[in-house]
Amino acid sequence: MIYLDNAATTRPNERALAAALKFAAQEYYNPSARYGGGLAVSKELKRAREGLLGMLADPARFELIFTSGGTEADNQALRCLGKRNLVISAGEHAAVYETALAMKNAGVEVRIAPVGADGAADPSALLSLVDEKTSLVSVVHVNNETGAVNDIFALAARIKKKNPRCLVHSDGVQAFGKIPVRLTEAIDLYSVSAHKIGGIKGIGALIKRKDLALSPLISGGGQENGRRSGTENVLGILDFFYAAEEKFRTAEADFSRLLRCRERLWSLLDGELFTRISPEGGSPYILTVSAKGLRGEILQHINEERGVIVGTGSACSSKKPFSRVIEACGYGKEILGGVLRFSFSPATTEEEIENAAAAVNASAAELKSRIG
Amino acid sequence: MIYLDNAATTRPNERALAAALKFAAQEYYNPSARYGGGLAVSKELKRAREGLLGMLADPARFELIFTSGGTEADNQALRCLGKRNLVISAGEHAAVYETALAMKNAGVEVRIAPVGADGAADPSALLSLVDEKTSLVSVVHVNNETGAVNDIFALAARIKKKNPRCLVHSDGVQAFGKIPVRLTEAIDLYSVSAHKIGGIKGIGALIKRKDLALSPLISGGGQENGRRSGTENVLGILDFFYAAEEKFRTAEADFSRLLRCRERLWSLLDGELFTRISPEGGSPYILTVSAKGLRGEILQHINEERGVIVGTGSACSSKKPFSRVIEACGYGKEILGGVLRFSFSPATTEEEIENAAAAVNASAAELKSRIG
Repeated sequence: MIYLDNAATTRPNERALAAALKFAAQEYYNPSARYGGGLAVSKELKRAREGLLGMLADPARFELIFTSGGTEADNQALRCLGKRNLVISAGEHAAVYETALAMKNAGVEVRIAPVGADGAADPSALLSLVDEKTSLVSVVHVNNETGAVNDIFALAARIKKKNPRCLVHSDGVQAFGKIPVRLTEAIDLYSVSAHKIGGIKGIGALIKRKDLALSPLISGGGQENGRRSGTENVLGILDFFYAAEEKFRTAEADFSRLLRCRERLWSLLDGELFTRISPEGGSPYILTVSAKGLRGEILQHINEERGVIVGTGSACSSKKPFSRVIEACGYGKEILGGVLRFSFSPATTEEEIENAAAAVNASAAELKSRIG
Repeated sequence: MIYLDNAATTRPNERALAAALKFAAQEYYNPSARYGGGLAVSKELKRAREGLLGMLADPARFELIFTSGGTEADNQALRCLGKRNLVISAGEHAAVYETALAMKNAGVEVRIAPVGADGAADPSALLSLVDEKTSLVSVVHVNNETGAVNDIFALAARIKKKNPRCLVHSDGVQAFGKIPVRLTEAIDLYSVSAHKIGGIKGIGALIKRKDLALSPLISGGGQENGRRSGTENVLGILDFFYAAEEKFRTAEADFSRLLRCRERLWSLLDGELFTRISPEGGSPYILTVSAKGLRGEILQHINEERGVIVGTGSACSSKKPFSRVIEACGYGKEILGGVLRFSFSPATTEEEIENAAAAVNASAAELKSRIG
């Protein structure tokens, strides 16, 4: 099987998992306990926290709160800080988009900035929605459905210039470990997830400016410095750290190699059958196309029979007929119905790309001939 | 080492973890994905959901939402359903207690029922706090610090008689898999956790009455039937199920054997040095005592040197000088300072109990003579 749905989830790094498992099977103590075993776990958690934070921000200015994943991190940022009015882009992941909509019921005004054909937020349009009453802007760093990269740093600086008290959050789930990320002061909050970069599912983090007051979404025993209670997911946290360490070791090389893979795949796809949605300047890890007039789910199924696994859009919102995000890009039904997302990992080889292209071309041609 | 802090966390079941790991390492697909691999994971998650639910409730009347742990489950019950006034007991775990206090800021009136000397809620006093405006009552099933069992079923029936629209939630983290639990119709919500019964940390569930509307605390991609979003913690969920299956296989035998162990330990402890806090009718898994006039943390340390690991109270709230819950039981500083919690697991042996008693007696005698 050629697995090209790595943006949905990717294979956990075996070495990282094996190392983390030591703290599940043998050193299983509660990190809050004050005896030797608990303290040893607590110390390793601290190393993981500092290590992960150091990968994307200055530890003097930012701190990291472990959460159950990117979705919880997004929810905490929005639900605990969004007041009066909240600005998001139409390209947001459901974790931000649906949360913003839910907050409408609590009286928060939600303003949604349009995106371009590639799914990137329109910076000027977004900025025009920010006013003196805007509490929070949330813009995804890498669009999970198209790979478009928002320049959140430039955008955040412009937002702060217009309203210095407005907070800026970004969902960095598809960016962390994949494209260069170094948080600037204008970014207040940033969400990351483990299972997109070789960690297991169920663990992520919210990075926040140290001097920003943040109430917990989940309260209780006071873990995570009172910002997120519940016995720490020790296995998940350590696995996240160990997997990220390995991912970062090759991140630069992966970036350039996968950029070539992505373009190679596009060049091999039949231009008569496929329309490209992903921008050239987007993440090297994602190539989204549409087989115009064909049904993506059926294509996905035929591709699977040919040994190639691809996505049809965000797995998270796979219950709706069309992708809300691709629809916001301005495409009509013919394109929307045929969306396929190829997403890569450091394990993706050029040979897989070539075989995948051949299979996918054949599948689309077959389906097209079938429906006449 | 003799580990007697199993109520803080217990050693994960190795067979369960090994079985669950298959779905982390090989079958790592996103359960929302519609290709074969995703569907297979999704199917196993369904089996886990139904299996766990069947262990404590009638699946025709109840449903199960996976959460990141007992704390999140408690938070969702309280934060999403607590309005107007909310009644809890003074014996609640921090996950309920601190959350209720946090909700005060949102304008919810919090009424706290007193507990007896054993930590159990006073049913009549609690009932007197319930009125026609009470939205939710939350009473812990097994008190995590004393082992006292609240008869939540009788209590819930009385609450419903007084106010049929009042919801009843119980934190069952220390009950599930340890004492017999079968949810009745009067119970609307019940929280459980994996890592207290041989599962890993970072996974739990909220069981709710099927016909009860519950908004998500964490929104996004719509997982868990829209009640809790975020990519499913596949490893955690499956490990929880497999570990619970094993735990339930011996639950009855463990109950009677550990009851004997608990009483054997108490009979071996020096009556001149130790005061018993745990009631005889409480959970067999917990024996809490106090070395009057001595400091629990120091005793814990000396015990550790002698190869015995015990708790000093709830690990979750270990930053405060005294246990809030034991204080609510009505004890003075001399008792509060010397609290030790012994908590057992199915792996605890009678030999360990005897050796632990000898070590703990010697530690307390040594400390007493030192401060003399």
